[in-house]
Amino acid sequence: MSDDLLGPCPILLTPGPLTTRPETRQAMQRDWGSRDQAFIALTAEMRRRLPAVAHGQDSHVAVPLQGSGTFIIEAAIGTLTGPASKLLVLINGVYGERMLTIANRLQRPAVALRWPEQQAIGLDPVEQALRDDPAITHVAMVHCETTTGLLNPLDAVAALVARHDKALLVDAMSSFGALPIDLRQTPIAAVMASSNKCLEGVPGLGFALIEQAALLAARGNSESLSFDLFEQWRGFEANGQWRFTPPVQVVAALVSALRQLEAEGGPQTRLRRYRDNFDTLASGMAEMGFRLFLEPALQAPIIATFLQPDAAWFRFQSFYDALARRGFLIYPGKLSRAQTFRIGCIGALQRNDFLRLLAAIRAIKTESEGRWLD
Amino acid sequence: MSDDLLGPCPILLTPGPLTTRPETRQAMQRDWGSRDQAFIALTAEMRRRLPAVAHGQDSHVAVPLQGSGTFIIEAAIGTLTGPASKLLVLINGVYGERMLTIANRLQRPAVALRWPEQQAIGLDPVEQALRDDPAITHVAMVHCETTTGLLNPLDAVAALVARHDKALLVDAMSSFGALPIDLRQTPIAAVMASSNKCLEGVPGLGFALIEQAALLAARGNSESLSFDLFEQWRGFEANGQWRFTPPVQVVAALVSALRQLEAEGGPQTRLRRYRDNFDTLASGMAEMGFRLFLEPALQAPIIATFLQPDAAWFRFQSFYDALARRGFLIYPGKLSRAQTFRIGCIGALQRNDFLRLLAAIRAIKTESEGRWLD
Repeated sequence: MSDDLLGPCPILLTPGPLTTRPETRQAMQRDWGSRDQAFIALTAEMRRRLPAVAHGQDSHVAVPLQGSGTFIIEAAIGTLTGPASKLLVLINGVYGERMLTIANRLQRPAVALRWPEQQAIGLDPVEQALRDDPAITHVAMVHCETTTGLLNPLDAVAALVARHDKALLVDAMSSFGALPIDLRQTPIAAVMASSNKCLEGVPGLGFALIEQAALLAARGNSESLSFDLFEQWRGFEANGQWRFTPPVQVVAALVSALRQLEAEGGPQTRLRRYRDNFDTLASGMAEMGFRLFLEPALQAPIIATFLQPDAAWFRFQSFYDALARRGFLIYPGKLSRAQTFRIGCIGALQRNDFLRLLAAIRAIKTESEGRWLD
Repeated sequence: MSDDLLGPCPILLTPGPLTTRPETRQAMQRDWGSRDQAFIALTAEMRRRLPAVAHGQDSHVAVPLQGSGTFIIEAAIGTLTGPASKLLVLINGVYGERMLTIANRLQRPAVALRWPEQQAIGLDPVEQALRDDPAITHVAMVHCETTTGLLNPLDAVAALVARHDKALLVDAMSSFGALPIDLRQTPIAAVMASSNKCLEGVPGLGFALIEQAALLAARGNSESLSFDLFEQWRGFEANGQWRFTPPVQVVAALVSALRQLEAEGGPQTRLRRYRDNFDTLASGMAEMGFRLFLEPALQAPIIATFLQPDAAWFRFQSFYDALARRGFLIYPGKLSRAQTFRIGCIGALQRNDFLRLLAAIRAIKTESEGRWLD
């Protein structure tokens, strides 16, 4: 086989797809009959393990869906809200904005509250909006905004939304599996995430953890056949099978990754590793004069957004290319205003990887400064 | 790693996911940065190779989409038809019926013509319908109905539809890559298929080959953000990247599979192998008294539907289990009336695999008859 398909694998410092463990990729080395008992058992294990990651095994059901993270967000909004619902979307980044776009396209009545990208969602405007507009039935928010790496106050928003007796939909794409989500304590109607972020599987699968009652009330809402999570759930409950062809190798990789998460010690231990990655990165970058975009209190140790230095030696594309040549892939910024770049701290990476990255950045900086001075 | 994730792999005699080559699975052994140059090149190669399989490189663009085959069918209907369109769906099996369901749920005006599952689509009723109802703008059909394995007369229907100046949408899920489709000769607005059937990739990806003019006219039709194939195409054209996270390993496996298809000699050679598989199977099964559900003239060498024998020894579940224990997974029937089972002839399989299957069936039959006589 041609080399390009075999590697070497660069180290992915991105929000996902990210660097996976060899065991995870090895779990894609066999074929599966998608309606056979062995694969039904694999699907059941995945559906059992997913809610347990967030302590939701007694309250929420897992509804996996083929495709990307955006697919499961669209499916959850399209299934859990209907024409008579009204959705309040809390926005401080691209992914919050995307939930509003989805609601608008599906013609679900929706309103939005917005904060600047460097600010967390604030409780007072949400409280005000819920008090002023009793027609609101659902609130949607992003837990960790991949746009910046900002952590929104999930527990506080959830408590507020519950006090007003509304249903909360949470995009936990970048947080699920590492940042704490406790469905026993935190009232959430549905949490959506994907296989390839903090769970460290490969991309191709999203899932929603949905409160049983919210799901039962959602029958008939979805215009989409493929994205109807009520029917998708009914399919699993009926015979353990997927309604439509599942990405069998991606499912196997996720089951392997979920077993590894448990073996590693669960989300708490994983978060500790990510935090160590982030701290190593942040202090090394600070020494070289790079500045983080967010205040430390708002920063999740998932992805770090750095301001592009206003220095003659720095051009993002050359910096990216030089790092890529050394085997490190970083990520461009996605902010509406500031010039930034991002470095992910998640995936099968640890402190040593970040020490090597810092050494590479130091070398590139020295070289580039030298070239610029010449 | 636990054994269950590693294999052994049974031989999959199903309509897909199916048995893949080791090279295809090896192509899933590396990580990819989804916005990096190497993956952009991989996506470009895939988008270049797909239309060429059906000689569509000068007329059609490839729009790949994350998810199952049903996802791309829904996306194509939702993108290429609008509220002012009227779709005529030609139905002689479950997958034709599914296209009508999708159109109805998306509230696209749609009418249907139906034939029994053992009959091919007939031209006269189509001609009549197009003459009687000038509001019809699109016709949808399934090339090879996986329900039965029946081959519909694609070229004749396409010519008829073109004479009436309507647009044809073809579900070629089970045929693309083996059965002849020549987009230079056969007027088709869009062909939809997936990675994991005759292309012999792994599941997780669908694609549509769409006439450039049909795509340009489709702007703004899709209510779904995720399934908007116009926007999906614009994304690829803008920077070569996927709008939303792609299943990178599934894409790599498909590129590997497409290179192998070319190396094997293209769809013609592949069809010859499948036909050899089918003929071996059909004649061996006939010797044992099994009868095919379809007339030979209507049968594609993709999947064979057998009537369940009306014999005391035969119970489908025991038969299935006994074959599974010997490493062969067959497929249940999906017919509304007759009791059947199905055996797929596609995937990385050849005559020897079918000779081994026949030997296993013979042994099971002898054993079961013996047990029944005891």
